[in-house]
Amino acid sequence: MRLRRDNRAPEYLAQDERVVLNPESFRGKWHELFGNNNPIHVEFGCGKGGFITELARRNPHINYIAAERAETVVYKACKKANSSEETPSNLRFLYFDVSNCKEIFETGEVERLYLNFSDPWPKTRHANRRLTYRGFLEKYADILKKEGEIHFKTDNKGLFGFSIEEFSASGWLMKNVTLDLHNSGMEDNIMTEYEKKFSELGFTINRLEAVNPRQ
Amino acid sequence: MRLRRDNRAPEYLAQDERVVLNPESFRGKWHELFGNNNPIHVEFGCGKGGFITELARRNPHINYIAAERAETVVYKACKKANSSEETPSNLRFLYFDVSNCKEIFETGEVERLYLNFSDPWPKTRHANRRLTYRGFLEKYADILKKEGEIHFKTDNKGLFGFSIEEFSASGWLMKNVTLDLHNSGMEDNIMTEYEKKFSELGFTINRLEAVNPRQ
Repeated sequence: MRLRRDNRAPEYLAQDERVVLNPESFRGKWHELFGNNNPIHVEFGCGKGGFITELARRNPHINYIAAERAETVVYKACKKANSSEETPSNLRFLYFDVSNCKEIFETGEVERLYLNFSDPWPKTRHANRRLTYRGFLEKYADILKKEGEIHFKTDNKGLFGFSIEEFSASGWLMKNVTLDLHNSGMEDNIMTEYEKKFSELGFTINRLEAVNPRQ
Repeated sequence: MRLRRDNRAPEYLAQDERVVLNPESFRGKWHELFGNNNPIHVEFGCGKGGFITELARRNPHINYIAAERAETVVYKACKKANSSEETPSNLRFLYFDVSNCKEIFETGEVERLYLNFSDPWPKTRHANRRLTYRGFLEKYADILKKEGEIHFKTDNKGLFGFSIEEFSASGWLMKNVTLDLHNSGMEDNIMTEYEKKFSELGFTINRLEAVNPRQ
Protein backbone atom coordinates (compact mmCIF):
# COMPACT_ATOMS: atom_id res chain seq x y z
CA MET A 1 0.00 0.00 0.00
CA ARG A 2 1.43 3.38 -0.97
CA LEU A 3 0.30 6.42 0.98
CA ARG A 4 1.44 9.99 1.14
CA ARG A 5 3.38 10.63 4.29
CA ASP A 6 1.13 11.90 7.05
CA ASN A 7 2.83 14.43 9.32
CA ARG A 8 0.61 13.52 12.25
CA ALA A 9 2.02 9.98 12.26
CA PRO A 10 5.20 10.45 14.37
CA GLU A 11 3.44 12.18 17.24
CA TYR A 12 0.56 9.71 17.26
CA LEU A 13 2.84 6.69 17.14
CA ALA A 14 5.08 8.07 19.92
CA GLN A 15 2.17 8.13 22.37
CA ASP A 16 0.49 4.86 21.34
CA GLU A 17 1.54 2.10 23.67
CA ARG A 18 0.68 -0.46 21.02
CA VAL A 19 3.55 0.76 18.87
CA VAL A 20 7.08 -0.46 19.44
CA LEU A 21 9.43 2.30 18.34
CA ASN A 22 12.70 0.52 19.14
CA PRO A 23 12.03 -3.07 18.03
CA GLU A 24 15.75 -3.97 17.82
CA SER A 25 15.97 -3.67 21.58
CA PHE A 26 13.46 -6.52 22.01
CA ARG A 27 15.38 -9.00 19.89
CA GLY A 28 15.35 -12.29 21.80
CA LYS A 29 13.10 -10.91 24.54
CA TRP A 30 9.72 -10.20 23.00
CA HIS A 31 8.21 -12.39 25.70
CA GLU A 32 9.27 -9.73 28.21
CA LEU A 33 7.38 -7.06 26.32
CA PHE A 34 4.22 -9.20 26.24
CA GLY A 35 4.76 -10.38 29.82
CA ASN A 36 4.24 -14.05 29.01
CA ASN A 37 5.74 -16.95 27.06
CA ASN A 38 2.96 -17.34 24.52
CA PRO A 39 3.89 -18.07 20.90
CA ILE A 40 4.69 -15.11 18.67
CA HIS A 41 3.02 -14.75 15.27
CA VAL A 42 4.10 -11.95 12.95
CA GLU A 43 2.54 -10.35 9.87
CA PHE A 44 4.93 -8.76 7.42
CA GLY A 45 3.03 -6.10 5.51
CA CYS A 46 -0.03 -5.64 7.73
CA GLY A 47 -1.56 -2.84 5.66
CA LYS A 48 -4.52 -1.36 7.52
CA GLY A 49 -4.22 -4.12 10.11
CA GLY A 50 -7.74 -5.54 9.94
CA PHE A 51 -6.54 -9.12 9.50
CA ILE A 52 -4.13 -9.27 12.42
CA THR A 53 -6.37 -7.26 14.74
CA GLU A 54 -9.15 -9.80 14.22
CA LEU A 55 -6.70 -12.70 14.66
CA ALA A 56 -5.50 -11.15 17.94
CA ARG A 57 -9.08 -10.86 19.14
CA ARG A 58 -9.82 -14.49 18.36
CA ASN A 59 -6.59 -15.90 19.83
CA PRO A 60 -5.76 -14.24 23.15
CA HIS A 61 -3.09 -16.85 23.95
CA ILE A 62 -0.94 -15.89 20.98
CA ASN A 63 1.13 -12.71 20.78
CA TYR A 64 0.84 -10.83 17.49
CA ILE A 65 3.29 -8.43 15.91
CA ALA A 66 2.15 -6.45 12.86
CA ALA A 67 4.92 -4.95 10.79
CA GLU A 68 4.94 -2.49 7.94
CA ARG A 69 7.71 -0.64 6.24
CA ALA A 70 5.95 2.73 6.12
CA GLU A 71 5.32 4.74 9.26
CA THR A 72 2.15 6.23 7.78
CA VAL A 73 0.62 2.80 7.16
CA VAL A 74 1.28 1.76 10.76
CA TYR A 75 -0.34 5.00 11.86
CA LYS A 76 -3.51 4.13 9.92
CA ALA A 77 -3.48 0.57 11.22
CA CYS A 78 -3.10 1.73 14.84
CA LYS A 79 -5.85 4.25 14.55
CA LYS A 80 -8.08 1.52 13.20
CA ALA A 81 -7.17 -0.91 16.00
CA ASN A 82 -7.81 1.79 18.59
CA SER A 83 -11.15 2.83 17.14
CA SER A 84 -12.61 -0.48 18.23
CA GLU A 85 -14.24 -0.66 21.67
CA GLU A 86 -12.30 -3.68 22.71
CA THR A 87 -8.70 -3.48 21.52
CA PRO A 88 -6.66 -6.63 21.93
CA SER A 89 -3.77 -6.41 24.39
CA ASN A 90 -1.81 -9.16 22.62
CA LEU A 91 -1.01 -7.07 19.54
CA ARG A 92 1.87 -4.68 18.78
CA PHE A 93 2.66 -2.63 15.72
CA LEU A 94 6.05 -1.68 14.42
CA TYR A 95 7.64 -0.43 11.24
CA PHE A 96 10.84 -1.65 9.72
CA ASP A 97 12.16 -3.05 6.47
CA VAL A 98 11.62 -6.83 6.32
CA SER A 99 15.17 -7.16 4.98
CA ASN A 100 16.25 -6.36 8.53
CA CYS A 101 14.06 -8.93 10.26
CA LYS A 102 17.04 -10.77 11.76
CA GLU A 103 17.92 -7.60 13.66
CA ILE A 104 14.55 -7.72 15.36
CA PHE A 105 13.97 -11.42 15.94
CA GLU A 106 16.37 -13.96 17.33
CA THR A 107 16.82 -17.36 15.69
CA GLY A 108 13.68 -19.42 16.27
CA GLU A 109 11.82 -16.65 18.08
CA VAL A 110 8.80 -16.56 15.76
CA GLU A 111 6.33 -19.42 15.45
CA ARG A 112 4.34 -18.28 12.47
CA LEU A 113 4.65 -15.67 9.79
CA TYR A 114 1.82 -14.20 7.73
CA LEU A 115 2.36 -12.72 4.28
CA ASN A 116 -0.86 -11.33 2.87
CA PHE A 117 -1.14 -9.73 -0.56
CA SER A 118 2.47 -8.65 -0.65
CA ASP A 119 3.52 -6.30 -3.43
CA PRO A 120 3.92 -8.54 -6.54
CA TRP A 121 6.79 -6.49 -8.04
CA PRO A 122 5.83 -7.81 -11.49
CA LYS A 123 9.00 -6.83 -13.34
CA THR A 124 11.56 -9.61 -13.54
CA ARG A 125 14.38 -7.28 -12.51
CA HIS A 126 12.54 -6.60 -9.25
CA ALA A 127 12.09 -10.30 -8.39
CA ASN A 128 14.45 -9.98 -5.42
CA ARG A 129 12.11 -7.44 -3.81
CA ARG A 130 9.21 -9.90 -3.63
CA LEU A 131 8.74 -11.01 -0.02
CA THR A 132 8.88 -14.67 -1.08
CA TYR A 133 12.20 -14.30 -2.90
CA ARG A 134 14.66 -16.97 -1.73
CA GLY A 135 16.86 -14.36 -0.03
CA PHE A 136 13.92 -13.44 2.22
CA LEU A 137 12.99 -17.10 2.75
CA GLU A 138 16.47 -17.72 4.15
CA LYS A 139 15.95 -14.98 6.72
CA TYR A 140 12.49 -16.24 7.62
CA ALA A 141 13.86 -19.78 8.06
CA ASP A 142 16.26 -18.32 10.61
CA ILE A 143 13.82 -16.31 12.73
CA LEU A 144 11.13 -19.01 12.58
CA LYS A 145 11.14 -21.97 14.94
CA LYS A 146 11.90 -25.37 13.49
CA GLU A 147 8.60 -26.54 11.95
CA GLY A 148 7.41 -22.92 12.07
CA GLU A 149 5.15 -21.89 9.21
CA ILE A 150 4.52 -19.15 6.71
CA HIS A 151 0.89 -18.59 5.78
CA PHE A 152 0.75 -16.83 2.45
CA LYS A 153 -2.18 -15.35 0.50
CA THR A 154 -2.26 -13.44 -2.76
CA ASP A 155 -4.62 -12.74 -5.62
CA ASN A 156 -1.64 -12.25 -7.93
CA LYS A 157 -1.15 -15.32 -10.13
CA GLY A 158 2.37 -14.32 -11.10
CA LEU A 159 3.47 -13.87 -7.49
CA PHE A 160 1.87 -17.16 -6.47
CA GLY A 161 3.63 -19.15 -9.20
CA PHE A 162 6.93 -17.44 -8.40
CA SER A 163 6.48 -18.14 -4.70
CA ILE A 164 5.86 -21.86 -5.27
CA GLU A 165 9.12 -22.00 -7.22
CA GLU A 166 11.00 -20.17 -4.46
CA PHE A 167 9.57 -22.28 -1.63
CA SER A 168 10.34 -25.42 -3.63
CA ALA A 169 13.91 -24.38 -4.48
CA SER A 170 14.50 -23.50 -0.82
CA GLY A 171 13.23 -26.84 0.46
CA TRP A 172 10.07 -25.68 2.21
CA LEU A 173 7.20 -28.17 2.45
CA MET A 174 4.01 -26.69 1.00
CA LYS A 175 0.62 -27.81 2.29
CA ASN A 176 -3.00 -26.70 2.16
CA VAL A 177 -2.44 -25.17 -1.26
CA THR A 178 -5.52 -23.64 -2.87
CA LEU A 179 -6.06 -21.57 -5.99
CA ASP A 180 -9.54 -20.56 -4.91
CA LEU A 181 -9.52 -19.93 -1.19
CA HIS A 182 -13.10 -18.70 -0.89
CA ASN A 183 -14.45 -21.88 -2.48
CA SER A 184 -12.01 -24.23 -0.77
CA GLY A 185 -14.08 -24.99 2.30
CA MET A 186 -11.62 -23.27 4.67
CA GLU A 187 -13.88 -21.98 7.41
CA ASP A 188 -11.80 -19.68 9.58
CA ASN A 189 -10.34 -17.46 6.88
CA ILE A 190 -10.06 -13.82 7.96
CA MET A 191 -10.19 -11.47 5.00
CA THR A 192 -7.86 -8.51 4.76
CA GLU A 193 -9.25 -5.16 3.58
CA TYR A 194 -7.62 -5.74 0.20
CA GLU A 195 -8.98 -9.29 -0.01
CA LYS A 196 -12.57 -8.14 0.57
CA LYS A 197 -12.29 -5.55 -2.14
CA PHE A 198 -10.63 -7.67 -4.79
CA SER A 199 -12.58 -10.87 -4.20
CA GLU A 200 -15.78 -8.83 -4.63
CA LEU A 201 -14.39 -7.77 -8.00
CA GLY A 202 -14.16 -11.44 -8.99
CA PHE A 203 -10.49 -12.16 -8.35
CA THR A 204 -9.80 -15.60 -6.92
CA ILE A 205 -7.48 -15.83 -3.93
CA ASN A 206 -4.50 -18.19 -3.78
CA ARG A 207 -3.18 -19.46 -0.47
CA LEU A 208 -0.60 -21.89 0.85
CA GLU A 209 1.21 -22.82 4.03
CA ALA A 210 4.95 -23.51 3.96
CA VAL A 211 6.86 -25.32 6.69
CA ASN A 212 10.34 -24.19 7.73
CA PRO A 213 12.92 -26.57 6.27
CA ARG A 214 15.60 -25.68 8.85
CA GLN A 215 17.09 -28.79 10.49
CA MET B 1 -12.03 -38.86 -21.59
CA ARG B 2 -14.85 -41.38 -21.40
CA LEU B 3 -16.03 -43.01 -24.61
CA ARG B 4 -18.33 -45.87 -25.38
CA ARG B 5 -16.36 -48.91 -26.39
CA ASP B 6 -15.93 -49.07 -30.17
CA ASN B 7 -15.99 -52.61 -31.54
CA ARG B 8 -13.85 -51.63 -34.51
CA ALA B 9 -10.97 -50.74 -32.19
CA PRO B 10 -9.32 -54.16 -31.66
CA GLU B 11 -9.07 -54.98 -35.34
CA TYR B 12 -7.81 -51.52 -36.25
CA LEU B 13 -5.23 -51.47 -33.49
CA ALA B 14 -3.99 -54.95 -34.35
CA GLN B 15 -3.03 -53.86 -37.86
CA ASP B 16 -1.63 -50.41 -36.98
CA GLU B 17 2.13 -50.60 -36.72
CA ARG B 18 2.10 -47.49 -34.54
CA VAL B 19 0.37 -49.41 -31.78
CA VAL B 20 2.33 -51.53 -29.34
CA LEU B 21 0.05 -54.34 -28.21
CA ASN B 22 2.52 -56.06 -25.88
CA PRO B 23 4.30 -53.15 -24.17
CA GLU B 24 5.56 -55.29 -21.27
CA SER B 25 7.82 -57.12 -23.69
CA PHE B 26 9.70 -53.90 -24.45
CA ARG B 27 10.52 -53.09 -20.83
CA GLY B 28 14.16 -52.00 -20.82
CA LYS B 29 14.49 -52.22 -24.59
CA TRP B 30 12.30 -49.52 -26.06
CA HIS B 31 15.38 -48.28 -27.93
CA GLU B 32 15.26 -51.54 -29.92
CA LEU B 33 11.70 -50.85 -31.00
CA PHE B 34 12.60 -47.36 -32.15
CA GLY B 35 15.90 -48.53 -33.64
CA ASN B 36 17.96 -45.79 -32.00
CA ASN B 37 19.12 -44.52 -28.61
CA ASN B 38 17.20 -41.25 -28.63
CA PRO B 39 15.58 -40.07 -25.39
CA ILE B 40 12.11 -41.40 -24.59
CA HIS B 41 9.31 -39.01 -23.64
CA VAL B 42 5.96 -40.41 -22.54
CA GLU B 43 2.49 -38.93 -22.21
CA PHE B 44 0.18 -40.59 -19.69
CA GLY B 45 -3.37 -39.86 -20.76
CA CYS B 46 -2.88 -38.77 -24.36
CA GLY B 47 -6.58 -38.37 -25.15
CA LYS B 48 -7.03 -37.77 -28.87
CA GLY B 49 -3.28 -37.50 -29.26
CA GLY B 50 -3.02 -34.07 -30.87
CA PHE B 51 -0.45 -32.81 -28.37
CA ILE B 52 2.02 -35.67 -28.64
CA THR B 53 1.62 -36.05 -32.40
CA GLU B 54 2.60 -32.40 -32.89
CA LEU B 55 5.49 -32.78 -30.40
CA ALA B 56 6.73 -35.82 -32.34
CA ARG B 57 6.61 -33.85 -35.59
CA ARG B 58 8.61 -31.00 -34.12
CA ASN B 59 11.22 -33.16 -32.42
CA PRO B 60 12.33 -36.03 -34.68
CA HIS B 61 15.28 -36.85 -32.41
CA ILE B 62 13.08 -37.77 -29.47
CA ASN B 63 11.02 -40.95 -29.24
CA TYR B 64 7.46 -40.47 -28.05
CA ILE B 65 5.14 -42.94 -26.39
CA ALA B 66 1.48 -42.00 -25.94
CA ALA B 67 -0.43 -44.01 -23.40
CA GLU B 68 -4.07 -44.25 -22.53
CA ARG B 69 -6.01 -46.63 -20.36
CA ALA B 70 -8.89 -47.14 -22.78
CA GLU B 71 -8.44 -49.04 -26.00
CA THR B 72 -11.12 -46.96 -27.71
CA VAL B 73 -9.31 -43.70 -26.95
CA VAL B 74 -6.08 -45.04 -28.42
CA TYR B 75 -8.05 -46.11 -31.48
CA LYS B 76 -9.30 -42.53 -31.95
CA ALA B 77 -5.84 -41.10 -31.37
CA CYS B 78 -4.27 -43.45 -33.91
CA LYS B 79 -6.86 -42.73 -36.52
CA LYS B 80 -6.17 -39.04 -36.02
CA ALA B 81 -2.40 -39.49 -36.25
CA ASN B 82 -2.82 -41.54 -39.43
CA SER B 83 -5.18 -39.10 -41.08
CA SER B 84 -2.34 -36.62 -41.43
CA GLU B 85 -0.30 -36.71 -44.64
CA GLU B 86 2.98 -36.89 -42.85
CA THR B 87 2.75 -39.10 -39.79
CA PRO B 88 5.75 -39.06 -37.49
CA SER B 89 7.75 -42.27 -37.27
CA ASN B 90 9.01 -41.49 -33.76
CA LEU B 91 5.64 -42.00 -32.08
CA ARG B 92 3.99 -45.11 -30.67
CA PHE B 93 0.65 -45.62 -28.98
CA LEU B 94 -0.24 -48.08 -26.30
CA TYR B 95 -2.92 -48.67 -23.71
CA PHE B 96 -2.37 -49.74 -20.15
CA ASP B 97 -3.20 -48.66 -16.63
CA VAL B 98 -0.64 -46.10 -15.40
CA SER B 99 -0.56 -47.98 -12.08
CA ASN B 100 1.38 -50.64 -13.98
CA CYS B 101 3.95 -48.31 -15.53
CA LYS B 102 6.85 -50.07 -13.81
CA GLU B 103 5.94 -53.23 -15.73
CA ILE B 104 6.48 -51.37 -18.97
CA PHE B 105 9.45 -49.14 -18.26
CA GLU B 106 12.70 -50.03 -16.59
CA THR B 107 14.22 -47.84 -13.88
CA GLY B 108 15.49 -44.63 -15.48
CA GLU B 109 14.27 -45.53 -18.96
CA VAL B 110 12.10 -42.43 -19.47
CA GLU B 111 13.51 -38.91 -19.75
CA ARG B 112 10.34 -36.91 -19.57
CA LEU B 113 6.73 -37.52 -18.67
CA TYR B 114 3.76 -35.41 -19.76
CA LEU B 115 0.55 -35.26 -17.77
CA ASN B 116 -2.04 -33.09 -19.51
CA PHE B 117 -5.49 -32.38 -18.10
CA SER B 118 -5.62 -35.60 -16.13
CA ASP B 119 -8.95 -36.55 -14.58
CA PRO B 120 -9.24 -34.38 -11.43
CA TRP B 121 -11.17 -36.99 -9.40
CA PRO B 122 -12.62 -34.19 -7.27
CA LYS B 123 -13.93 -36.31 -4.39
CA THR B 124 -11.49 -36.57 -1.49
CA ARG B 125 -12.00 -40.32 -1.23
CA HIS B 126 -10.71 -40.65 -4.81
CA ALA B 127 -7.53 -38.64 -4.21
CA ASN B 128 -5.38 -41.72 -4.71
CA ARG B 129 -6.66 -42.07 -8.28
CA ARG B 130 -5.31 -38.66 -9.32
CA LEU B 131 -2.25 -39.14 -11.51
CA THR B 132 -0.20 -36.81 -9.28
CA TYR B 133 -1.02 -38.71 -6.09
CA ARG B 134 2.18 -39.52 -4.18
CA GLY B 135 1.81 -43.24 -4.89
CA PHE B 136 2.02 -42.49 -8.62
CA LEU B 137 4.86 -40.00 -8.12
CA GLU B 138 6.91 -42.78 -6.51
CA LYS B 139 6.48 -44.93 -9.59
CA TYR B 140 7.29 -42.05 -11.93
CA ALA B 141 10.44 -41.29 -9.92
CA ASP B 142 11.51 -44.86 -10.58
CA ILE B 143 10.92 -45.03 -14.33
CA LEU B 144 12.29 -41.51 -14.93
CA LYS B 145 16.00 -40.83 -15.26
CA LYS B 146 17.70 -38.92 -12.49
CA GLU B 147 16.92 -35.27 -13.17
CA GLY B 148 14.11 -36.42 -15.48
CA GLU B 149 11.04 -34.20 -15.49
CA ILE B 150 7.27 -34.25 -15.37
CA HIS B 151 5.54 -31.52 -17.36
CA PHE B 152 2.05 -31.06 -16.01
CA LYS B 153 -0.89 -28.95 -17.23
CA THR B 154 -4.41 -28.63 -15.94
CA ASP B 155 -7.25 -26.14 -15.91
CA ASN B 156 -8.52 -27.68 -12.68
CA LYS B 157 -7.61 -25.47 -9.71
CA GLY B 158 -8.27 -28.23 -7.19
CA LEU B 159 -6.04 -30.71 -8.99
CA PHE B 160 -3.27 -28.14 -9.39
CA GLY B 161 -3.24 -27.24 -5.68
CA PHE B 162 -3.33 -30.92 -4.73
CA SER B 163 -0.49 -31.69 -7.13
CA ILE B 164 1.74 -28.96 -5.68
CA GLU B 165 1.21 -30.49 -2.24
CA GLU B 166 2.04 -33.97 -3.53
CA PHE B 167 5.15 -32.90 -5.45
CA SER B 168 6.29 -30.92 -2.41
CA ALA B 169 5.69 -33.78 0.04
CA SER B 170 7.53 -36.17 -2.28
CA GLY B 171 10.57 -33.89 -2.60
CA TRP B 172 10.24 -32.92 -6.27
CA LEU B 173 11.65 -29.54 -7.30
CA MET B 174 8.99 -27.43 -9.02
CA LYS B 175 9.98 -24.87 -11.62
CA ASN B 176 8.36 -22.75 -14.33
CA VAL B 177 5.13 -22.65 -12.36
CA THR B 178 2.36 -20.59 -13.93
CA LEU B 179 -1.30 -20.09 -13.09
CA ASP B 180 -2.03 -18.52 -16.46
CA LEU B 181 -0.06 -20.37 -19.11
CA HIS B 182 -1.48 -18.57 -22.12
CA ASN B 183 -0.44 -15.19 -20.71
CA SER B 184 2.88 -16.36 -19.29
CA GLY B 185 5.02 -15.64 -22.33
CA MET B 186 5.77 -19.34 -22.95
CA GLU B 187 6.16 -19.50 -26.72
CA ASP B 188 6.30 -23.15 -27.68
CA ASN B 189 3.20 -24.37 -25.87
CA ILE B 190 1.30 -27.01 -27.82
CA MET B 191 -2.36 -27.04 -26.92
CA THR B 192 -4.24 -30.29 -26.41
CA GLU B 193 -7.73 -30.62 -27.89
CA TYR B 194 -9.20 -30.14 -24.42
CA GLU B 195 -6.99 -27.12 -23.74
CA LYS B 196 -8.16 -25.35 -26.91
CA LYS B 197 -11.77 -25.89 -26.03
CA PHE B 198 -11.62 -24.89 -22.40
CA SER B 199 -9.28 -21.93 -22.77
CA GLU B 200 -11.68 -20.53 -25.38
CA LEU B 201 -14.37 -20.79 -22.72
CA GLY B 202 -12.28 -18.54 -20.48
CA PHE B 203 -10.60 -21.10 -18.22
CA THR B 204 -7.02 -20.28 -17.32
CA ILE B 205 -4.44 -23.04 -17.65
CA ASN B 206 -2.03 -23.99 -14.86
CA ARG B 207 1.32 -25.58 -15.63
CA LEU B 208 4.47 -26.65 -13.85
CA GLU B 209 7.57 -28.74 -14.35
CA ALA B 210 8.78 -31.05 -11.60
CA VAL B 211 12.26 -32.55 -11.40
CA ASN B 212 12.77 -36.14 -10.24
CA PRO B 213 14.10 -36.15 -6.67
CA ARG B 214 15.65 -39.62 -6.96
CA GLN B 215 19.28 -39.65 -5.81
